[in-house]
Amino acid sequence: MTLGFGVIGAGRIGKLHAENIATRLRDTQLLAIADIDANAAASTASKLRVPTSTDDYRKLLENPQIDAIVICSSTSTHADIIVEAAKAGKHIFCEKPIDYDLSRIDAALKAVEEAGVKLQIGFNRRFDANHRRVKQAIVNGEIGEPHLMHIVSRDPAPPPIEYIKVSGGIFFDMTIHDFDMARFLVGSEVEEIYAAAGVMVDPAIGAAGDVDTAIITLKFANGVIGTIDNSRRAVYGYDQRVEVFGSGGSISTDNRFSNQATIQTTQGVWRDLPLHFFLERYADSFVTEMREFAQAVRSDTIVPVSGPDGRVPVLMAMAAKRSYELNRPVKIKEVEA
Amino acid sequence: MTLGFGVIGAGRIGKLHAENIATRLRDTQLLAIADIDANAAASTASKLRVPTSTDDYRKLLENPQIDAIVICSSTSTHADIIVEAAKAGKHIFCEKPIDYDLSRIDAALKAVEEAGVKLQIGFNRRFDANHRRVKQAIVNGEIGEPHLMHIVSRDPAPPPIEYIKVSGGIFFDMTIHDFDMARFLVGSEVEEIYAAAGVMVDPAIGAAGDVDTAIITLKFANGVIGTIDNSRRAVYGYDQRVEVFGSGGSISTDNRFSNQATIQTTQGVWRDLPLHFFLERYADSFVTEMREFAQAVRSDTIVPVSGPDGRVPVLMAMAAKRSYELNRPVKIKEVEA
Amino acid sequence: MTLGFGVIGAGRIGKLHAENIATRLRDTQLLAIADIDANAAASTASKLRVPTSTDDYRKLLENPQIDAIVICSSTSTHADIIVEAAKAGKHIFCEKPIDYDLSRIDAALKAVEEAGVKLQIGFNRRFDANHRRVKQAIVNGEIGEPHLMHIVSRDPAPPPIEYIKVSGGIFFDMTIHDFDMARFLVGSEVEEIYAAAGVMVDPAIGAAGDVDTAIITLKFANGVIGTIDNSRRAVYGYDQRVEVFGSGGSISTDNRFSNQATIQTTQGVWRDLPLHFFLERYADSFVTEMREFAQAVRSDTIVPVSGPDGRVPVLMAMAAKRSYELNRPVKIKEVEA
Amino acid sequence: MTLGFGVIGAGRIGKLHAENIATRLRDTQLLAIADIDANAAASTASKLRVPTSTDDYRKLLENPQIDAIVICSSTSTHADIIVEAAKAGKHIFCEKPIDYDLSRIDAALKAVEEAGVKLQIGFNRRFDANHRRVKQAIVNGEIGEPHLMHIVSRDPAPPPIEYIKVSGGIFFDMTIHDFDMARFLVGSEVEEIYAAAGVMVDPAIGAAGDVDTAIITLKFANGVIGTIDNSRRAVYGYDQRVEVFGSGGSISTDNRFSNQATIQTTQGVWRDLPLHFFLERYADSFVTEMREFAQAVRSDTIVPVSGPDGRVPVLMAMAAKRSYELNRPVKIKEVEA
Repeated sequence: MTLGFGVIGAGRIGKLHAENIATRLRDTQLLAIADIDANAAASTASKLRVPTSTDDYRKLLENPQIDAIVICSSTSTHADIIVEAAKAGKHIFCEKPIDYDLSRIDAALKAVEEAGVKLQIGFNRRFDANHRRVKQAIVNGEIGEPHLMHIVSRDPAPPPIEYIKVSGGIFFDMTIHDFDMARFLVGSEVEEIYAAAGVMVDPAIGAAGDVDTAIITLKFANGVIGTIDNSRRAVYGYDQRVEVFGSGGSISTDNRFSNQATIQTTQGVWRDLPLHFFLERYADSFVTEMREFAQAVRSDTIVPVSGPDGRVPVLMAMAAKRSYELNRPVKIKEVEA
Repeated sequence: MTLGFGVIGAGRIGKLHAENIATRLRDTQLLAIADIDANAAASTASKLRVPTSTDDYRKLLENPQIDAIVICSSTSTHADIIVEAAKAGKHIFCEKPIDYDLSRIDAALKAVEEAGVKLQIGFNRRFDANHRRVKQAIVNGEIGEPHLMHIVSRDPAPPPIEYIKVSGGIFFDMTIHDFDMARFLVGSEVEEIYAAAGVMVDPAIGAAGDVDTAIITLKFANGVIGTIDNSRRAVYGYDQRVEVFGSGGSISTDNRFSNQATIQTTQGVWRDLPLHFFLERYADSFVTEMREFAQAVRSDTIVPVSGPDGRVPVLMAMAAKRSYELNRPVKIKEVEA
Repeated sequence: MTLGFGVIGAGRIGKLHAENIATRLRDTQLLAIADIDANAAASTASKLRVPTSTDDYRKLLENPQIDAIVICSSTSTHADIIVEAAKAGKHIFCEKPIDYDLSRIDAALKAVEEAGVKLQIGFNRRFDANHRRVKQAIVNGEIGEPHLMHIVSRDPAPPPIEYIKVSGGIFFDMTIHDFDMARFLVGSEVEEIYAAAGVMVDPAIGAAGDVDTAIITLKFANGVIGTIDNSRRAVYGYDQRVEVFGSGGSISTDNRFSNQATIQTTQGVWRDLPLHFFLERYADSFVTEMREFAQAVRSDTIVPVSGPDGRVPVLMAMAAKRSYELNRPVKIKEVEA
Repeated sequence: MTLGFGVIGAGRIGKLHAENIATRLRDTQLLAIADIDANAAASTASKLRVPTSTDDYRKLLENPQIDAIVICSSTSTHADIIVEAAKAGKHIFCEKPIDYDLSRIDAALKAVEEAGVKLQIGFNRRFDANHRRVKQAIVNGEIGEPHLMHIVSRDPAPPPIEYIKVSGGIFFDMTIHDFDMARFLVGSEVEEIYAAAGVMVDPAIGAAGDVDTAIITLKFANGVIGTIDNSRRAVYGYDQRVEVFGSGGSISTDNRFSNQATIQTTQGVWRDLPLHFFLERYADSFVTEMREFAQAVRSDTIVPVSGPDGRVPVLMAMAAKRSYELNRPVKIKEVEA
């Protein structure tokens, strides 16, 4: 069965998903692209030989050939489109985060549940080969019972200050991926968070009311203790590593590099920098998440990243933010209430 | 300008090139697939939504919309199809080797030259990120003047004995890639070859008149000395590494792995095996070689692997074979004469 | 000038220092060994051809040929012997910690100051080649201004429960080395500590009133944020690594191994475990710290680990302990007051 | 039983052995040092508190307290001193090579055999932890039956031209260690050698009648094929690595480094250079070889590197030299005859 797809939003991530659906997936057809900027939609559609483009995403919801939609529009529109798409009976792949507001998230999840459609959240990093290998080691018991977890997640450079101002802050914008990763790897919910943070990269980020460097301590329900180490600027490139330590050993991952060459000169032993940008580093994971979404829709099985998986990291970001503001550990229960 | 492609041969490598042309290249169109097995051609064409399939490759040569053909049929047909395609004014991408017979190779190259079409040979490994980085280091002078070169090239498992019998032997079938790599990296021609070899993997290979393990010493015109280390069976997977040592340092490459995870247990510190098969290890290089071929055709510039680049490794294989048989160094001149 | 040494305490660490002084240092002479167990003292003295052994350490303080004494007796005796040795005009090398009681530490440091003798504390890890290289990178500005620090410090196995009971707890017994390392590397004082911890290795450790697994967050005066990751049992061996991340890059260290061999089989790519025990891992650092102590005495220059360097980590351990008990960040000022 | 030692030759290697015997071995006593330069002998003796020094090595042979002598004088004297020492009933540790002349080697080995004393040759690299681990892997069958072997052995810088002129040439002076290593690791004798070589590092080496860069192919009696890769100058430091590939996998070693720190900056990911000089790289192996020699003497067991182990690499060097001169493979039998 060929699955019909529509993509809403033709920005950077929308174009990426559109291209993956059009060229990397089997038995799928990308039928339409929508963007409030009609030209952006048309240009992407043309490049990928997609038959339809529009500036009105509702056209996609009305198209009976479209089985699944991919929401890549701006965050503030996610929840509403989820509700509409669910009512239209479409399966939904939605970029993270669903929303920053719990009640809006809950309304969207409720609509999905009532409609009985699939909803998958775009936490693509779960599909990365390194993170999958860590998860597998834990599930297989290769390192025994987990005790400690350490996530290093550093961007190569901060986004523009204008973006920072509307981003919701580092915990919602950047750490949210690591919050998801922490839950995913440890396989247990976080109960309490302590965030230490500061402005070290750029004073303008501080002036915008945000921080750019943070260490977040997580206490999990199963007793595991973990840390997330964030920076908005690692000058050597995108730094994405994980270590989980347990009763039977440890597993840790290195970054990925464009080549495996080592050069020795009188100056030292060196190699080229790690992959610099998330689009390179996680290129495969974006394909895999979409392939598994299509597969879940086709076989009517559960999606690998559920709606509730999109909700919990928002709670964690709330707790982290409050912890930083109060300089004390904050329980998830405190922010959920 | 959209470039029209036709692929001849729908075996493993033909299907790979067809898929890459259809989904990974920009501004190209795969218009037809030919195979003597009409079903094989039709099945691949259908999967990739290619409009035409046929059991007669001449149909492709007659199609005015096809600018370039990709020859992936059996080796014995390469030279003849090159001649016909050249006469038809098609640009040609041909899988290695052109042929095992020098006079047939020369006839093919002459036809290409007379027709003024492009011919690129499928030495895909030159396009691998690791090998490119080594080449770049040498060209940039990062390691000074090269002195020594060492290529490790080991397959995960030998091919079937039936294949071995018609393969032309290890030097023509397997080392030929390494001969090309040696010339490519060092940037100088090999003048003399000494091959030490034996049957260590499987006596049946010896019974078929071939060897399965070899070390080949190369002397280059510019004074560099190099070795190639071949085995038909590395039980841990495909082993493809290179080291070049020079007056200013050295560069060496490691294998590529499916993940960068390291596990520590009471048993040791370990990681998963390297990528096991050439289709995984060199997946990107197959895309890149075709992309650069298309680019050379489109911009009428020189192809990165020329017809003569396809001829020299055959001479080197001849010299290696003779060296092994006589147990003495053999000059390239001896086999060319 | 040959320097005369006396060693007090012929336990594991006393024997190690005695052997290093007797065989690894130039222009030093080990003249006497004292231990409350006269046989232990005599046995070590005999093996190293040391002329005098005694069960009364005061004999060493009275010996005019002895310029420096090395205190390796039990922790509870350190402060008193420091006071006596200082009054006797001896230079002092004292194993960590000086004491668990601030007033006793301060009394010892006062005696040293009044006597004008040298006092060096046995934080040997500062002299390890890896930690020195990290320090050097920071001092040289190789990674710019430090932002984040992460210390992994895991023992291969917990000490006996009887020892745990009198150890002062994990923060005083184990993390104290990491507290010193944190100050040493970052070059700034810690102002606030948050400790998350639990009993994951052995319930008997919990029954003894201690924890065995901890993550400690440190905030430094210069703005750096750091973490220490401790476990009493890393089944794969002694795990001692450091990472410091800054505005210009990062530096991280790997463990040390008995060999640099890598084995590839059908099972994976692996190497032998890291050095298992602190005596192997830090063998060189014990020699270097004593050599630099001798050098500081001989040339009357400042010692590389001062008395106050022995005092501050005790404060940090107090803060960590209180933080764990109260589950909130604790300022160093709170415990010093 | 305390073993009495005498060292003949107080040059670089003689001083090293003297210091190791005096400070690193248990139950040994260094009683005398001889050197034709009496001052050199006296200075080393004084520094190590050795009771006797002399310019006449025969004094050591006459000393009844001396059980074993260590021959570190110039190569031309080795064979004669072995004969004299054997007649005096002393056990002998002799630096490599015994001699460059087969008949003199054979006379020395005969004298040792007749006297029934121990003779160990100073092939220290066998005692290096990396090489031992490779040997162990092969003996344990961890990589199955060996098929291929590759030794990289490159010096950081060539010796002075004056030394080159009297060194016997690269095969006798430098490769001889690798010839020993090849036999040791593979556990089989070499039957045939092919040497390709050239002058790439310094024309003055060529003018002195020697080469500075070589690749030597070895065929072993058990079928294994191997290569040795030599250069007189690796600008990045001493390069000593080994790879053995077999039916069940492979084992390879990396160099040893002064630290395990990795730095990432905008320029790349790098570490400090490998240990630069053989005295650092093989420091431990010099201690271990002497310790095992003392142990063999004390327990009257066989020494780990026998007299014949000192003879065979000289034959291999002869074959390599002849192979290079004739540009053809040369059998060991040809040079032994």
